[in-house]
Amino acid sequence: MLLEQITQPKDLKRLSIEQLEQLATETRQFLVEKLSVTGGHLSSNLGVVELTIALHYLFNSPNDKFIFDVGHQSYVHKMLTGRMDKFDTLRKYKGLCGFVKRSESEHDVWEAGHSSTSLSAAMGMAIARDLKGDNNRVVAIIGDGALTGGMALEALNHIGHEKKNLIVVLNDNEMSIAPNVGALHNYLGKIRSDKHYVKVKEEVEYLIKKIPAIGGTLAKTIEKLKDSLKYMVVPGVLFEELGLTYLGPLDGHNLPVLLETLKQAEKVEGPVLLHVVTLKGKGYSPAEADSHAWHGASPYKIESGQMLKSVGPPMYTEVFSKSLIELAREDSRIVAVTPAMPGGSGLLGFAAEFPNRMIDVGIAEQHAATLCAALANEGIKPVFAVYSTFLQRAYDQVVHDICRANLNVIFAIDRAGFVGPDGETHQGVYDIAYLRSIPNMVLMMPKDENELRHMMKTAVDYNEGPIAIRYPRISGLGTSMDNPYQTLPIGTWEVLRPGDSAVVLAVGPMIPLAMEAAEQLSKDGVQLRVVNARFIKPMDEAMLLQLAKDNLPIITMEEGALMGGFGSSVLEYYANQNLYGLRIKILGIPDYFVEHGSVPEQRKEVGLTAEKLVSEVKSLVPRKRQHA
Amino acid sequence: MLLEQITQPKDLKRLSIEQLEQLATETRQFLVEKLSVTGGHLSSNLGVVELTIALHYLFNSPNDKFIFDVGHQSYVHKMLTGRMDKFDTLRKYKGLCGFVKRSESEHDVWEAGHSSTSLSAAMGMAIARDLKGDNNRVVAIIGDGALTGGMALEALNHIGHEKKNLIVVLNDNEMSIAPNVGALHNYLGKIRSDKHYVKVKEEVEYLIKKIPAIGGTLAKTIEKLKDSLKYMVVPGVLFEELGLTYLGPLDGHNLPVLLETLKQAEKVEGPVLLHVVTLKGKGYSPAEADSHAWHGASPYKIESGQMLKSVGPPMYTEVFSKSLIELAREDSRIVAVTPAMPGGSGLLGFAAEFPNRMIDVGIAEQHAATLCAALANEGIKPVFAVYSTFLQRAYDQVVHDICRANLNVIFAIDRAGFVGPDGETHQGVYDIAYLRSIPNMVLMMPKDENELRHMMKTAVDYNEGPIAIRYPRISGLGTSMDNPYQTLPIGTWEVLRPGDSAVVLAVGPMIPLAMEAAEQLSKDGVQLRVVNARFIKPMDEAMLLQLAKDNLPIITMEEGALMGGFGSSVLEYYANQNLYGLRIKILGIPDYFVEHGSVPEQRKEVGLTAEKLVSEVKSLVPRKRQHA
Repeated sequence: MLLEQITQPKDLKRLSIEQLEQLATETRQFLVEKLSVTGGHLSSNLGVVELTIALHYLFNSPNDKFIFDVGHQSYVHKMLTGRMDKFDTLRKYKGLCGFVKRSESEHDVWEAGHSSTSLSAAMGMAIARDLKGDNNRVVAIIGDGALTGGMALEALNHIGHEKKNLIVVLNDNEMSIAPNVGALHNYLGKIRSDKHYVKVKEEVEYLIKKIPAIGGTLAKTIEKLKDSLKYMVVPGVLFEELGLTYLGPLDGHNLPVLLETLKQAEKVEGPVLLHVVTLKGKGYSPAEADSHAWHGASPYKIESGQMLKSVGPPMYTEVFSKSLIELAREDSRIVAVTPAMPGGSGLLGFAAEFPNRMIDVGIAEQHAATLCAALANEGIKPVFAVYSTFLQRAYDQVVHDICRANLNVIFAIDRAGFVGPDGETHQGVYDIAYLRSIPNMVLMMPKDENELRHMMKTAVDYNEGPIAIRYPRISGLGTSMDNPYQTLPIGTWEVLRPGDSAVVLAVGPMIPLAMEAAEQLSKDGVQLRVVNARFIKPMDEAMLLQLAKDNLPIITMEEGALMGGFGSSVLEYYANQNLYGLRIKILGIPDYFVEHGSVPEQRKEVGLTAEKLVSEVKSLVPRKRQHA
Repeated sequence: MLLEQITQPKDLKRLSIEQLEQLATETRQFLVEKLSVTGGHLSSNLGVVELTIALHYLFNSPNDKFIFDVGHQSYVHKMLTGRMDKFDTLRKYKGLCGFVKRSESEHDVWEAGHSSTSLSAAMGMAIARDLKGDNNRVVAIIGDGALTGGMALEALNHIGHEKKNLIVVLNDNEMSIAPNVGALHNYLGKIRSDKHYVKVKEEVEYLIKKIPAIGGTLAKTIEKLKDSLKYMVVPGVLFEELGLTYLGPLDGHNLPVLLETLKQAEKVEGPVLLHVVTLKGKGYSPAEADSHAWHGASPYKIESGQMLKSVGPPMYTEVFSKSLIELAREDSRIVAVTPAMPGGSGLLGFAAEFPNRMIDVGIAEQHAATLCAALANEGIKPVFAVYSTFLQRAYDQVVHDICRANLNVIFAIDRAGFVGPDGETHQGVYDIAYLRSIPNMVLMMPKDENELRHMMKTAVDYNEGPIAIRYPRISGLGTSMDNPYQTLPIGTWEVLRPGDSAVVLAVGPMIPLAMEAAEQLSKDGVQLRVVNARFIKPMDEAMLLQLAKDNLPIITMEEGALMGGFGSSVLEYYANQNLYGLRIKILGIPDYFVEHGSVPEQRKEVGLTAEKLVSEVKSLVPRKRQHA
């Protein structure tokens, strides 16, 4: 095995092209094998095997900077930089991170997780290099999907203007997570499909010679004509017009071609865009056949490509998916909007049934949010299906275009709370803090998958402004589904379990933990009242007032940042009401970034457990009342 | 006066071209006169006089939708839609809004304030129109500066793909607020500077005929060649490649040409981009000469163009400006980054002295933030100078790229708190709530302009992660400036006035109000301790603990959203410390969007005044202690 001999990038440099090709094959085998056990981003990594090998063969990491957009396609990079032995722990608690991670290796020079940041990072590194008088290379590796993200286009505009030396490798795999949409995608497709550049170029040159020599203005025109021919022979005119030198398109699985073109790119003065065409899942036929399903793969059987799915209640995403379809059948105003996540957000069924009411804007959260505002402005009911962590990208649009104008946009915020193996870049733990401080926003979280359906109905029936439902990246509780749908009164909570020793105001998936704690506490004579604080904003003020009158110790519990979260909102309420002296404890996520692992491990790390709640309640309830 | 006869758009339709031209002249006179008293966005409105007249002449508002990007260039639109008599109240409390405002007129169909939202809005309205089976026209009017904003590019990508009927009027005035930067700007300049399209087109056609007829492959090549000629005769190839029909460039002050081309645009199937070249300040020579200074004009003398400036202490922005230059002379790591606001953010002096250390990325807040992260990653000290309201655009980048990676980025957050006449779209009142909940962030606000300088020094000396200073859009207090600069211990507050009846923890510009209140209260025997809560995060926990021990009533006071703000942070602290029973009152901005007016009027509206503080303190302090 050649692979075993590679512990650092320089080990590559003594290999022949043939050996590099063998290394590529071994790399694929390694990935298919390891990920069959751990799961992970298989297809995108299979797509960049040759590219990553070529980069490490030709350049000198970490002096030369490789910036992987998103970073989930960095597995090969990790393998070539001494981390092959860590792949059994991939995306596990305290294990190898699924993204680029500076603390893992000096070769990881830039971290990401969200898409479209690499060009800004590359530009910053190029500016810093020139300010410091260094001469290292800067290489950004960005997918065609990520290129449509607004910040990548902002960066491209800057890069093309400043003319700094840097290389943009456009990894065009025709597929971000969902099939790409957008004019840029169409444009790239046009380039890819035209196989005749070289031939045409020769013919045009022959033709030029045939044009009779004519003097005067016409001569100038001929010169211009010659100039304009570059538009025919250089396919990347759009990038050329933006000030980058375009090279490509080239086959990203052909190592000799890749190496030659990268050498060429290195010699160009100013920014270069290298258009590399790759196939997601390359070399593993199940992944080649369905790169969508294999984007983030669960563990699978290598032979059949059959993914091992856990059995049990449906994920919240699936329940959202079904209820959206059912509600859309009844209400023709409903339109779904996704920023390139039709699969992850559970919209494929909706798209199949209502193709005209499904809008996938590509990786473009800002545009998606304001598009929703405009739809709502015209009487449509847009459902913006978005992950909590990606909604961060549209924060200003939520404030400025939706909430300020008080438009009827429905937010279906998936992956709210801990997200497990994707870790700190993807935790959906800030949305309560950043959404509740915006005027006009209504924010809900369901206690179970059945209540999610009622919240969907509530959101559809609500016509007084924006309304958001956040739900977690976990399975439901297996509750049975009520019919028909119900509309919840805005700003109401419900008592799920009586108790007069203390009360817990629990949000969403904290509720089962609270019920468990209450059960345990009752054995010690402590009766914990459990409240489903299903409206995070507005809160149930009548109930809050009553609690103050009862003078019960109050504990809030949420899977979100403590700072500025739901608990904080409860404290604010009582302060505003001049109600002092209440014993209130707020439980949530403390002020640091929680890394990858399973959701239960993440909860345990921060103390969001039944055990912790039990001990908090005991410390709040006077000893004498504990055995009353 | 023709102008007096126009009370609604249809009044325009019976005018001749000559009369429309006269109307344009009268419109300019009106604007120059009215704004000389009120101030306002003069130059951008003078630039769109003919364009706005042409749109209302040709189309039928409000059935046809005009979407003004940013919206500060809507004054002519307001004049033509029955609001001429309101211009004396422009941007004043309860007066005419400086932006498009739905509550003012049925012709105001879309609100903005922040840039680059119009294309998303237009696309949303076009989709809604088609879903509803309507057939109105949708016209977005967007400046060349706003076009570089990421969300506008995201929208363009979507528009070019979907091929819906809509018209994008690119108002190319070579100037957003600052001179534009970026590759798109260069590209537009190239188009504008080439005057020979028509002539070249004729010559090329002649040339084509001269090419000898040759069969076979070469014939196909000739066909392709002919196709490629469009790149020479159609200047907007970049937009054409993105799927839009390009028309232009045309003179935006030539009404017959404008009308003719708009008619042409109307007939095109699918999206059209109309490239209109205008001159900011057109028709008023002082504004033509310096469109930068005249972007947001103060009242001025019409004859001389001399702006009337208030005398008094320097604005916070100016103090920031000077201190940045002084610190940059000592510390070569410092680099300034601005998203198209070098003037507004006080960076012109810095740019003059350190041209290589000044980075203007254009309207591109997301890119700017991540660029700062990359610079910091490489040991540079970026100072991201940005308005509070615009930093909202980079929220995700602040979380994901800066705070998560804990990079040494300095945020100079201008226009924090109420911003006065720009009103609700520009209020800088959410940054405390959205920044303090992000781990690793340090957040300060100075009590006066002298302390701002020390905070700048503190930020430069701090090497443990991101650090932000927020300062208001007002003048300083006229305090004398200490030398040398001091470094403030992170997380410390200071007692500015002793007192044992109650304590106010005041942030930034609330401090003079608190001092005034304390003075008043002392006459009634109430001694209000005034604390400068200069670190919003981390807080001075030692002082907070001591206050709890003293059991003093505590009032927090901040010019920021109450929900999730600084006051909320104080409540959280005591809850986390199990310190119950304290009398705490939090003062801040309640949960709604505060409209335009002067800063004192805005403060009065929400109760952020010395009087309000006096009454709050009195209600908290037991009567017997008030005259102790």
